[in-house]
This record gives sequence, structure tokens and C-alpha cells, in this order.
Amino acid sequence: MINFAQHIPTTIHFGKGQVRAIEVELKKRAKKTLIVTGGGSVKRNGVFDAVIREVKKANIPYTELSGIEPNPRLKSVYKGIDLCRKESVDSILAVGGGSVIDAAKAIAAGVKYDGDVWDFFTKDISPNGALPIGTVLTLSATGSEMNGNTVITKEDTKRKLAIGSPFLKPTFSILDPEYTYTVNRYHTAAGVVDIMVHVFEQYFSKTTASDVQDRLAEGLLKVCLKYGPIVCEKPRDYDARANIMWTGSLALNGVVGDGKKEDWATHAIEHELSAIYDISHGAGLAIVSPNWMKNVLSKETVGRFVDYGINVWGIAKSKDNMAIANESIDKTREFFRLLGMPATLKEVNISDEYFERMAKDAIRDWGQIGYFKKLSTNDIVNILKLSL
Amino acid sequence: MINFAQHIPTTIHFGKGQVRAIEVELKKRAKKTLIVTGGGSVKRNGVFDAVIREVKKANIPYTELSGIEPNPRLKSVYKGIDLCRKESVDSILAVGGGSVIDAAKAIAAGVKYDGDVWDFFTKDISPNGALPIGTVLTLSATGSEMNGNTVITKEDTKRKLAIGSPFLKPTFSILDPEYTYTVNRYHTAAGVVDIMVHVFEQYFSKTTASDVQDRLAEGLLKVCLKYGPIVCEKPRDYDARANIMWTGSLALNGVVGDGKKEDWATHAIEHELSAIYDISHGAGLAIVSPNWMKNVLSKETVGRFVDYGINVWGIAKSKDNMAIANESIDKTREFFRLLGMPATLKEVNISDEYFERMAKDAIRDWGQIGYFKKLSTNDIVNILKLSL
Repeated sequence: MINFAQHIPTTIHFGKGQVRAIEVELKKRAKKTLIVTGGGSVKRNGVFDAVIREVKKANIPYTELSGIEPNPRLKSVYKGIDLCRKESVDSILAVGGGSVIDAAKAIAAGVKYDGDVWDFFTKDISPNGALPIGTVLTLSATGSEMNGNTVITKEDTKRKLAIGSPFLKPTFSILDPEYTYTVNRYHTAAGVVDIMVHVFEQYFSKTTASDVQDRLAEGLLKVCLKYGPIVCEKPRDYDARANIMWTGSLALNGVVGDGKKEDWATHAIEHELSAIYDISHGAGLAIVSPNWMKNVLSKETVGRFVDYGINVWGIAKSKDNMAIANESIDKTREFFRLLGMPATLKEVNISDEYFERMAKDAIRDWGQIGYFKKLSTNDIVNILKLSL
Repeated sequence: MINFAQHIPTTIHFGKGQVRAIEVELKKRAKKTLIVTGGGSVKRNGVFDAVIREVKKANIPYTELSGIEPNPRLKSVYKGIDLCRKESVDSILAVGGGSVIDAAKAIAAGVKYDGDVWDFFTKDISPNGALPIGTVLTLSATGSEMNGNTVITKEDTKRKLAIGSPFLKPTFSILDPEYTYTVNRYHTAAGVVDIMVHVFEQYFSKTTASDVQDRLAEGLLKVCLKYGPIVCEKPRDYDARANIMWTGSLALNGVVGDGKKEDWATHAIEHELSAIYDISHGAGLAIVSPNWMKNVLSKETVGRFVDYGINVWGIAKSKDNMAIANESIDKTREFFRLLGMPATLKEVNISDEYFERMAKDAIRDWGQIGYFKKLSTNDIVNILKLSL
């Protein structure tokens, strides 16, 4: 285990009807709030109305920014910053999935910064403050509701970049599993994949003696194996939605990664894909992740795959190590396919046209790709070719 | 899973040399601090000197309260409250194990209350504030470094009572595994038992579909099975000390219990024992816990023991459910004995003299004993008799 500092300040209100906590939370810190939403599903399924009722109970005036895109765009962030300044907003309430929350975070930091908010993503400048952010989560996937990360895409240059800052950790998040009932099968499945790959990025690590983090990671993965197929088949199964929702938050709030050197190669590669092609992040991960595993599996790394195979997939200990490792990778791919996710780039109409460019861009944007195994441009191209 | 609110605001500084974080943390919120310590071990092993160096670097004046007892006494809490008021202290730094931290918490809340601090433990009055508390942990056991609980004993009436309050959650905690190197084998083992029984109190529950919490709980227990014997045999094994230390904090910070109806019968019974006999809390738990398991095991509860036996102890699934359950209980008892803990009350010179009184006192103090199975006075007496 390596040294770490951990601070998880977000208050979680988990369960049916927890939207009622908004009243007290807003009263603590808001005089005027910006409500950020996405493409309109929260208006169709009643979540938005429930939120507005609570905001009104708190007697907090609000203004609204709707239409945040699935891979949230910088131009929407600019729009939100302008709105906050014009309307003297002092807090933000994001109602939606990870994209809406990520946009809200970038807006919250941008309002407090005199320069261009894109500086945080491209220069060595960190947010020096942010408006307080509350979230009402409607899609289990990114974990953004309980961490300080945000991913924004600049549309003209097709760059999708991530930052993290303690100022961007939400002050509170409402996690009502019923609010995810109307998410369709495809996005539900993509969310489960995103959650699992978040765990992989932290689990597959060279850090030794991180047993606490590793056993917790395996526990979260086992929950995904049990409930992933159920949330896809039975969208209104409360227990399944609840377990996936809570797993999504814990998968990326620090509990399974703090104390370890994390990897994040799969995300780096997928970000290049979805910056150019605008495919769903979870679908991209489902395609890339098993091929990343194949690329990094070696005599040196096989031990971690053996843990994964035995403790998560229940593969018999008696088998040969390499056999366990390969079986665990095959089972991962099969599981993603069972959820209804694509397994190849062809299925999402992506050719090898930009492979070289994406590999180079990934290394340019992230500095180093991979810490479990450091990937070269060649490695990345090979992973993409395996994914065809 | 049941509805819950979770807020874990404590900043953790984990690892070798993290004592250096004290300087920044104190500067954030302290003008004068009270340093609380126990029986003197921190002065012999250098931890106290290291802390003082950082307090001096922060340029924060301090006063000192030493001599907090292993089961911290109300009279020490009174002494600390007087000292804080006399010296105009605005923050508390606890340097020690759970007892020192618990005393610091009661002092922190007592300073902000005009009445008798014991009211919080005996009347329907909750703390309405507390001085900010920092901790430097030197013994892995109670988890007090990352939660809002405190347990105080009133010496004349032999009452050992617990309270919890959000105001009592430490603002920061320094967890340096090296600071636990000099803890002797007995107290190290008692700490491991305490950690494991904390997990049991949350794991053995009637709440259904709490898979996230349950898989995390099993993960923490597996870490204890691996590293418990090592910390006892090799007190200076960093990896073992680190894993046990972090497990101890996570075992009782809400991550494995929030969303579940918890039990706490074993603790209720042990508190009565250690209020009268002043035995080590961990030793009392090691004796009572397996006998509590025997008492609550039934056709209705066997499923949870089957999970425990298979997922934690690796018992073969193919066996009969009751056989798995009984084997898991036997293995628990054997494991505590392997660590060097007593398995019977006789070994710690406790007879059946006060069994009836302890059973009645437990029910008086806690209202209801047990939620996995609600225990009657008879059940408690029977558990104690089984423990003889």
C-alpha cells in the first residue's frame, strides 16, 4: 500500500424519496441556484418536477440550463458560466447522469475563475474554488456524484479531457434507485460496464499489499456480476437498481483506489474513441477493456489476473495461472456481450482510419498511458486493432 | 437495502511519515489545542515527540491531558472539559488508541454544553456542537478515528455507555502503521478481534439485498484472516500493520453498515462485562462473539452464516447449510484463540455471579438487545453461561 490522503465530503442521501433532503441541503448554502439538466428525460419521468417541488419548499429562486450533451461540450459549460454570472447564482444543482454532473462541475469552477475554464484542462492551472454543487443522480455509471472529477469535450478540436479537484466534490448527492427505472437497457448496460472498468483501472495495479482495496474492489465487481444482468432485464427491480447505484458511487470515490497506483489506460484509449466518434463511453469501454487485458497479460502481471479470475469469477484455483487469466478475460468479454454491449469496433462502425492519431493523441493528452503496464503508441494501436 | 444518509467528513492521512500533515491541519482551525494522551506509551515510543514537533511547526500553543484510562472514565472527561475552559482551548488533538480518542470526543462535546456531559449518555439530549478533533492513531481497533462514536465509563456506577453524533467525527486522522509497531501482542490481537466483531455487528442483519455492504464486509474480514496472525507474530511488518489499520477504520465508518439494520448485541453484552470487570474489550468480544453466534443460529438465520462460511472462510458449498454455519462459528472461535485471545470467561477469572444483573443492565442501557435476533434476558444469560 502506498501513502494517501482521503477526503470524501459528499453527503449521500440514498433511497426511495430521498429527494426530500434537497430542501434542508439547499437552505444550508444557497441563495439562488442553477439547475442543470440534460436532454429532457428528467422532465418526462417526473424527476424534474419532484426536484422543483423541493427547491420551492426551500424557497430558493432558481434558473435553468437544459440540454447538456451525453459527452458534455465546452460550449455548454461557457453558457452555464455566463448564466451564473448574469443571474448571480451561488450554487448549482445537477439533475441527471454523469454528463450533466460533469458539466455542472466545470461551470462551478469556471464561475470562480477569471480566465478561460478550458485552461484547467489544457494548462497547469487548477481550480481555486467552485460554487457548491448538489446532484440528483438519474443514471448509475460515472461515479461523478461522489468525486471531484469532470470530463469535458471541446467540440471543434475533438478533445475530450479530464480534470480532478477537491473543489469539485459535490456537497450532497441524492441517490434514489427509482430515479434510474426509466433508463433504457442500452444505457443501463453501458453504465454497468463503466462501473466495472472504473474498478479495473484501480484493481489492476503494480502496488503490492493493497489487500483492503483489492478485496473491496472484488466485492464491488461481484455485485455487478449479480445485478448487472438483472438491471438490464428488469429495469424496475429496486434491489438491483439500488445495488448497482451504490456500487457506481463507491467504485470511484477513492475507497478502492486510494493507496494504490492506478492505471486508467482503458479510459485514455476510450476517450480518444468517443471524442472522435461520439459513441457511448460504456460501449467504448466494453470493446477496449478485454483487449487491453489481453495486451497487458504477461508472466509479470498474471498474478493479478489469477486473483481476478478466482475471487471474482470463481474459476477453480487448481488450473494453470495463464489459463485462469485467459478464462477471466474471456468471461469479462462474454459478460459485457450478455449485457448487450458491442464487443468490436466494427459493430459501432469504427474503422482503423484514426488508430495512429488516437494513439498519439492519447499519449499527448495523458502524458503516460498505463501504470500496470506502460503502453507505447504501438501497444495502443495493437489494442485498437484487436478491438476491430 | 434500507434508506440511509452517509457523511464521512474525516480527512485521512495514511502512511509512513504522515504526521507531517498535522501542521497544515492545525493551522486551518486551531488557535490553541489540547493534546490528549493515555498511559504514556506514546511518550516512550517517540510518537508524542513527533507530534509536538509538528504542533510547534504550526506555531499553535498547546496544553496537555495525559493518563486517559483503557476504558476511559468520566472523571477524566470532566478534567479535560475544565482544562479546555480554563485554558481557552479551541481544538483537541488525541494521540493514542480508541480510548484516548473517545475521551477527546466527550471532552470536545462537553466543552460546548452548559450541563453535565454525562447527560448525553443517560438522557435524551444530543451534543449541539463540539470542538474540532484531530487524531493520531496508535492502536488499530475501535475505528473511533473515522466515526462519531464515543464510549465512556462512569466509575462509581460501573456503567459503560456509548453515544454517536455527527459533531464527534474527527476533522482529520493521521494513520501511520509504523505508530502501531510497539503495541504488544495481546492488545494487537484484541484490536483485530474488535475490528472483526464490528464487521459482524453490521454483517449479521435481517436486511435483504444489501449485497454491496455484505461483499465489502466479507472483504474486510478476509483481510483480517490474512493479516491478523501476521501482526501478532511480526509486529513490525508494515504491510500487515497497514492493512489491519485501514480495515479498522473502514470497519466502522459507515461503509459496511449504512443501508442495513445493525445488530450490536455482542457489544452490548461485552460492555456490561468490561464495565464490571475492566477486562480488555477485545478479549471480552472474543469470548462472547462465537457464543452469540451459537445462540442466534437458527433455520431462519442460517443463510447469513452460510454466506459467512463460504465467502469468508472458504468452506465448501457442497456441505449442508447447518454444517457450514457451525463450522464457520468453530473457525471463528479457533481463529480468536490462534491470535492468543481467551475463549472462556474462566480464563479471565469471571464467574457467573453477575450474569442476571448484566443481562438486565444491558437491556436497560440499550433498550433492545439485538436486531438480527432480539435477545431476551434469558438469551443473554445463556450466552454468558455458554461463555463460562
